[in-house]
Amino acid sequence: MCIKREIPLGHFQARSQQLPALDPRALSTGLAPKEEPEASVPAAMLPRQLLARPAWLFRCPPGPRGACAPGAAGSWGRPVGPLARRGCCSAPGTPEVPLTRERYPVRRLPFSTVSEQDLAAFERIVPGGVVTDPEALQAPNVDWIRTLRGSSKVLLRPRTSEEVSHILRHCHERNLAVNPQGGNTGMVGGSVPVFDEIILSTARMNKVLSFHSVSGILVCQAGCVLEELSHYVEERDFIMPLDLGAKGSCHIGGNVATNAGGLRFLRYGSLHGTVLGLEVVLADGTILDCLTSLRKDNTGYDLKQLFIGSEGTLGVITAVSILCPPKPRAVNVAFLGCPGFAEVLQTFSTCKGMLGEILSAFEFMDAVCMQLVGRYLHLASPVQESPFYVLIETSGSNAGHDAEKLGSFLEHALGSGLVTDGTMATDQTKVKMLWALRERIAEALSRDGYVYKYDLSLPVERLYDIVTDVRARLGPHAKHVVGYGHLGNLALIRSDFGNWIRGQLVISFRNRGVLENTVLSAVGGISVCTDPSDKTSLPVLE
Amino acid sequence: MCIKREIPLGHFQARSQQLPALDPRALSTGLAPKEEPEASVPAAMLPRQLLARPAWLFRCPPGPRGACAPGAAGSWGRPVGPLARRGCCSAPGTPEVPLTRERYPVRRLPFSTVSEQDLAAFERIVPGGVVTDPEALQAPNVDWIRTLRGSSKVLLRPRTSEEVSHILRHCHERNLAVNPQGGNTGMVGGSVPVFDEIILSTARMNKVLSFHSVSGILVCQAGCVLEELSHYVEERDFIMPLDLGAKGSCHIGGNVATNAGGLRFLRYGSLHGTVLGLEVVLADGTILDCLTSLRKDNTGYDLKQLFIGSEGTLGVITAVSILCPPKPRAVNVAFLGCPGFAEVLQTFSTCKGMLGEILSAFEFMDAVCMQLVGRYLHLASPVQESPFYVLIETSGSNAGHDAEKLGSFLEHALGSGLVTDGTMATDQTKVKMLWALRERIAEALSRDGYVYKYDLSLPVERLYDIVTDVRARLGPHAKHVVGYGHLGNLALIRSDFGNWIRGQLVISFRNRGVLENTVLSAVGGISVCTDPSDKTSLPVLE
Repeated sequence: MCIKREIPLGHFQARSQQLPALDPRALSTGLAPKEEPEASVPAAMLPRQLLARPAWLFRCPPGPRGACAPGAAGSWGRPVGPLARRGCCSAPGTPEVPLTRERYPVRRLPFSTVSEQDLAAFERIVPGGVVTDPEALQAPNVDWIRTLRGSSKVLLRPRTSEEVSHILRHCHERNLAVNPQGGNTGMVGGSVPVFDEIILSTARMNKVLSFHSVSGILVCQAGCVLEELSHYVEERDFIMPLDLGAKGSCHIGGNVATNAGGLRFLRYGSLHGTVLGLEVVLADGTILDCLTSLRKDNTGYDLKQLFIGSEGTLGVITAVSILCPPKPRAVNVAFLGCPGFAEVLQTFSTCKGMLGEILSAFEFMDAVCMQLVGRYLHLASPVQESPFYVLIETSGSNAGHDAEKLGSFLEHALGSGLVTDGTMATDQTKVKMLWALRERIAEALSRDGYVYKYDLSLPVERLYDIVTDVRARLGPHAKHVVGYGHLGNLALIRSDFGNWIRGQLVISFRNRGVLENTVLSAVGGISVCTDPSDKTSLPVLE
Repeated sequence: MCIKREIPLGHFQARSQQLPALDPRALSTGLAPKEEPEASVPAAMLPRQLLARPAWLFRCPPGPRGACAPGAAGSWGRPVGPLARRGCCSAPGTPEVPLTRERYPVRRLPFSTVSEQDLAAFERIVPGGVVTDPEALQAPNVDWIRTLRGSSKVLLRPRTSEEVSHILRHCHERNLAVNPQGGNTGMVGGSVPVFDEIILSTARMNKVLSFHSVSGILVCQAGCVLEELSHYVEERDFIMPLDLGAKGSCHIGGNVATNAGGLRFLRYGSLHGTVLGLEVVLADGTILDCLTSLRKDNTGYDLKQLFIGSEGTLGVITAVSILCPPKPRAVNVAFLGCPGFAEVLQTFSTCKGMLGEILSAFEFMDAVCMQLVGRYLHLASPVQESPFYVLIETSGSNAGHDAEKLGSFLEHALGSGLVTDGTMATDQTKVKMLWALRERIAEALSRDGYVYKYDLSLPVERLYDIVTDVRARLGPHAKHVVGYGHLGNLALIRSDFGNWIRGQLVISFRNRGVLENTVLSAVGGISVCTDPSDKTSLPVLE
């Protein structure tokens, strides 16, 4: 049930902005939906009873149904499947990625090298699952952002935990190095070998083992692709408790091994809370069964917790039991333009207060991000050009209540100048279109040049300063320096440091190399928190 | 904003029950509130427009304001402070608890005994914090349910982590056994010594170290009492992510060490998700600082997770950083009577669907529980006598929306016969009165006799069977066998076992002893999951 309320006309008169039409160029890939006449009506001319569904909330073009259907994802949707995703980064003509061992001063530890006898043993353990074809090994040796390249000569594709156990036992006895690999979508090089480590792929471990329709507990093999799991549980009226841009390729085992946060962290929290059990194979082949799916299990130490975020260094995760929340009956996404970063922060704070328990995501991106997704992926901004954009998602059990809460919030945000323009979507196609703008930033950046990406935690008020500082310092040497991220993961590092948040700083260069070691000195005084396994890290200067 | 809707009269006519008046005996401690006239109006005579605030929703007597104020907690409220709580179990006239070492076939390990030199060393480490007075040592040697008694000769009361470190280093070097103790409210004997272990109390480590009003992150010492922390953060518009009956005495450090679930688990999840950091002192005195309060911290292994639920066996938790959710603007509690356990389960399932994101607690108790809280604590049932009762709490950001959701649910539950009677409260005093019925069951049981309490996980459909089976098997040997618990902690143990849930089975005996070893054989075929440190466990028979 939807509650109709009036917005004082003043809010719109005060702004008196023309609502711009959608950029037709951005939708010119043969899928351009028809524009709705009201899309270009000046806001001040809109009827007064708006908040139930104000016209500007629908400026994201509904178009003909087929235009944005999942099958026609060329312009707005995500590429389908792992190859499509990786394909975008390894298009013909892109230069070869240099070998990590040549680029960085790293030394191979005294591991053995793979012999013919080893290959024969692997073939006995995983018949048909031993890949040694150099061409087939190219992609798994290179990371997703094409910064690192290993020189592994063999990739193994087990189907079961027992096969993983046999492989690791053999490698342990033979002193062979192993690099577990899931969807190879990591941004910090953890999923690719540095030297000639054996790549242990979870790609064929992609079975759902069980799903309980009352409790929402999913038990599956580690190689299940996140998006496929999402579809699986959504058909059963649940959702996965995590979601991220790489969902089309990333594996749930890799998500757990890297303690992925992602877009639903704000609402459903950390994997330390939602992962109920793990099966892990240790380096010597021991299978550690912590797969008990009790939501609160106090019998013995909670060993599985150690493997969440351990990046495969303690063992290979082979199966996951995870608690899926019920599928919300109503999902709304608002995409808003903000005049400055201070307004982005204020919008978040207001949003938390007014949307409360239904707020499920709050993301921000800067104007350059929007330009890049437009340029490389042909995604058009659904709102007027702004210095910053925020994406707000609500998920709730009552569409009317949620619309009313969101309406009140938007009314306030517009009236107080926190937000200058916006659009809202409720149907799944439009929701996906809006999400694509945020989710596909990394993909657009990877087409822009040689990319360095940092997951930063900084004091709230300085989060965006690092972007402008680095931009100023690098000048024309950098093609683009951008900032975006999940504002929802508001964090505090030590009480004496004040209020910190996490965000992404991404720098793309025209050419590889010379500036690498000087980049972060630009932000002197800020020490940057990067992932411990981040092989692409630039030196951190205090 | 509250949405008024009509309930079809038939729902009430079909039931045509007299709504009984409150039992005046139960409120005869000088605090009896005045009964409201409508409390005894038959439901069928109620006006039709009920759901905004139907009359039966207010049958919990509002009474004069002073009647149920926190200060006058004698009848409905919790006793105030640790002594009041313990006092209820060690009232004059109750027989002495036998020594654990005489009751169970346990052997003291070859630890040293405390010497005069040790006491002098402790006095230097914690001046004025060494307790050796036998009378003062009586209470900390006995567990809350008065089942176990140690014979410790010394209790230490450090104020800082450094003092804890010095104490443990000394004990490590001298081979002295140590038993950490928080509020001593545990039900499984983990907080009291078995022999002459030194009791290391966190009672004086009760400082809030910091609270961040934007992120809601609280950092405090381990000995802070949960209820005091609740008051502290509630004044700042947040709530603690956990709540339990023992809140008036239990320490946050003990909550974390035992991975307490409690009444808010359903909504805010496990401490593995909400605890952001810990400071722990290891057995050799090493201070392990995992107190970083980053909401998602992927730098290195998440070692703190191992200490959550480790019952003090890996180290003594000395400080906790915890994420507090924003205080909900509206809290509603409904207390309902159900005709059978099947209806309790069905009510839960319906409730989850209809209340969605605002459902914050779902508890059940049986008729015997209600009789016992009435008999020993003079708490009256606010609803007609029923075989089962459920307590439902909602917490949300919009009172009108929440009332509408709850109203729709109650309409459905009444109409379909899942629920036969009910009352609802929104103001804090009444909410506390309703919660007391559930929270104080353990206290009432402890006055009933020699109590054995089990935290069980069983298949949903058999959870209550164990109560009736044990009741039948023990017959007149047991005074009472009762079942109650958090239905919200719905769990699944291994997919092949079906859908299990947790609940409490409590058996009280008139006399101690003879039946101890036979109780659970009554439920042959059910293997019972108890806490690993549960020193009161009866043998588990398959």
